[in-house]
Amino acid sequence: MSLEHFPQSPENSRKKAKQLVLSLQDEICNNLENIDKEGIFQEESWDRPEGGGGRSRVMREGRVFEQAGVNFSEVHGEELPPSILNQRPEAKGHSWFATGTSMVLHPRNPYIPTVHLNYRYFEAGPVWWFGGGADLTPYYPYLSDTRHFHKEHQKACDSINPQLHKVFKPWCDEYFFLKHRNESRGVGGIFFDYQDGSGKLYKGQNPQGPAANISNKLGKHQMTWDELFNLAKSCGKAFLPSYLPIIEKRQNQSYGNPQREFQLYRRGRYVEFNLVWDRGTIFGLQTNGRTESILMSLPPLARWEYGYTAENGSREELLTDVFTKPQDWFSDRTLEEKCRPLNALD
Amino acid sequence: MSLEHFPQSPENSRKKAKQLVLSLQDEICNNLENIDKEGIFQEESWDRPEGGGGRSRVMREGRVFEQAGVNFSEVHGEELPPSILNQRPEAKGHSWFATGTSMVLHPRNPYIPTVHLNYRYFEAGPVWWFGGGADLTPYYPYLSDTRHFHKEHQKACDSINPQLHKVFKPWCDEYFFLKHRNESRGVGGIFFDYQDGSGKLYKGQNPQGPAANISNKLGKHQMTWDELFNLAKSCGKAFLPSYLPIIEKRQNQSYGNPQREFQLYRRGRYVEFNLVWDRGTIFGLQTNGRTESILMSLPPLARWEYGYTAENGSREELLTDVFTKPQDWFSDRTLEEKCRPLNALD
Repeated sequence: MSLEHFPQSPENSRKKAKQLVLSLQDEICNNLENIDKEGIFQEESWDRPEGGGGRSRVMREGRVFEQAGVNFSEVHGEELPPSILNQRPEAKGHSWFATGTSMVLHPRNPYIPTVHLNYRYFEAGPVWWFGGGADLTPYYPYLSDTRHFHKEHQKACDSINPQLHKVFKPWCDEYFFLKHRNESRGVGGIFFDYQDGSGKLYKGQNPQGPAANISNKLGKHQMTWDELFNLAKSCGKAFLPSYLPIIEKRQNQSYGNPQREFQLYRRGRYVEFNLVWDRGTIFGLQTNGRTESILMSLPPLARWEYGYTAENGSREELLTDVFTKPQDWFSDRTLEEKCRPLNALD
Repeated sequence: MSLEHFPQSPENSRKKAKQLVLSLQDEICNNLENIDKEGIFQEESWDRPEGGGGRSRVMREGRVFEQAGVNFSEVHGEELPPSILNQRPEAKGHSWFATGTSMVLHPRNPYIPTVHLNYRYFEAGPVWWFGGGADLTPYYPYLSDTRHFHKEHQKACDSINPQLHKVFKPWCDEYFFLKHRNESRGVGGIFFDYQDGSGKLYKGQNPQGPAANISNKLGKHQMTWDELFNLAKSCGKAFLPSYLPIIEKRQNQSYGNPQREFQLYRRGRYVEFNLVWDRGTIFGLQTNGRTESILMSLPPLARWEYGYTAENGSREELLTDVFTKPQDWFSDRTLEEKCRPLNALD
């Protein structure tokens, strides 16, 4: 990509991006404490020896949340690691800056899904980009909850450009996939990376994959820094209205030991994805990141069971047959037929 | 390495190697059932679509063993994957054969260590090699147990060549290491790979690492196929006498919830090692291996806790300060001083 056609970032870009993710962290933590009513976030600030630092917040043993972790970090360094330079060769030879917030919530009640959010901003010399998204991982899924989560994120994307959601939704399905299980991590949401306004593919990106569509979808329309900033802001702010209503609706649904056991078993899949496939986690662990903050995403308790298979026609089978496969949640009407007999519609 | 100087394998090499690992699986399972007294191994045979198959055995909810998995497999194919060909370029263009047994035991009592064993044999055209080892991962360690485990494996190595153990012991420390935690997985044991009798380094092996020592230690003495076969046999047979006495000694030691919680927390480290660092696990998962058999190594239950640190001067601190660092278990006398005050000697 020629740098001449590379959209400019504003002068106060770093400050604006940092303020955005910091305020997201604050707003999310405040609202999670409010809904939990018992759990309180413990905060820990840390410095990164190579430059920058962060602010980790963890709630443990809350009423709703068995564990909730919300990180903020702002880090910088001399040169980006090879894994990122491969995909963004224009950044080579430049010092870099990155700021972001990431969150994983592990509710206690198996009827409330686990959820993940991450929004981040990078700068390295003349190049910059936004990345992030949010995805939902139910244990005992409801079609209405899934649709609600997606609808809120679609609205957020649409508010910037109505072409974006049809790229970011399948991109999420592609990224949060456990190849060794042939399963999605959950019902997805949205995901995007290396968004610099050019709409071009980044090096190494699958030219047949969903991300490749963005240039087609956007046509000649380059997105400006401000539009992408507003995209991250709009999606970040969509999280609370996408998730809190699910808590409200499910928090009093009673469950027994079998549901708890299944939740712990499925949490094992969350561990498998994060440690085997998640580029961010692996990159962090292999390059001297802050281990405790990186692994805040892991569940407080998880279970493995050799050869487990769900009973025919069970609610558990519905999860693996329908809700851990990429789906067209809004318009596929067969989903309703599959969910209705198991009371998994609403 | 010139193939002219490559030691020959006998005509019945595949059959002999297969018989060895099959009989190891049998002998180990029989003895584990005997000592457990309640748990029974469930066996499952499986075919590999690309060639070969295996026999997986799992005991769940035994008296001693919360979970015990012992696998056998014999697989073959057209060409080895790039990750192995990089280290053994002579195998390129040849069909291959591999057979092995692998085992992970997760006892219920936190005073009994988790243990892992794996012995394997590869052939690809003119090249062949043995690999494997065994390592111990205590939760509440005893110096005497650690020394006993190492002593039995040292004797097994010495029976083939007294130069081997001083290479295979540090090789194990190097391999079973969690860089992101700066911790060993446990107290180690022995480990070796790509042993073809030449004593040469394989491609990509750290020339400053422990494996590099083997050619120095063995001097001009090449090991024959039979010697390496006997090495695998001798080490494999050392497992039961190295481990069963630890069970006998610890199985009636009572423990409470804090010990159980600490065991579950440390099992999280086992998951982290296997999913982030273990080449065999990652390779298997990323190349369409039999997921359930590969992940039989994961514990039935594991726990993560943000920011956990052991109490000053506690038994738990002894584990991370002393027993998850590479040590000279036999001759370092300061170990005894560190263990005595915490009743961790014997």
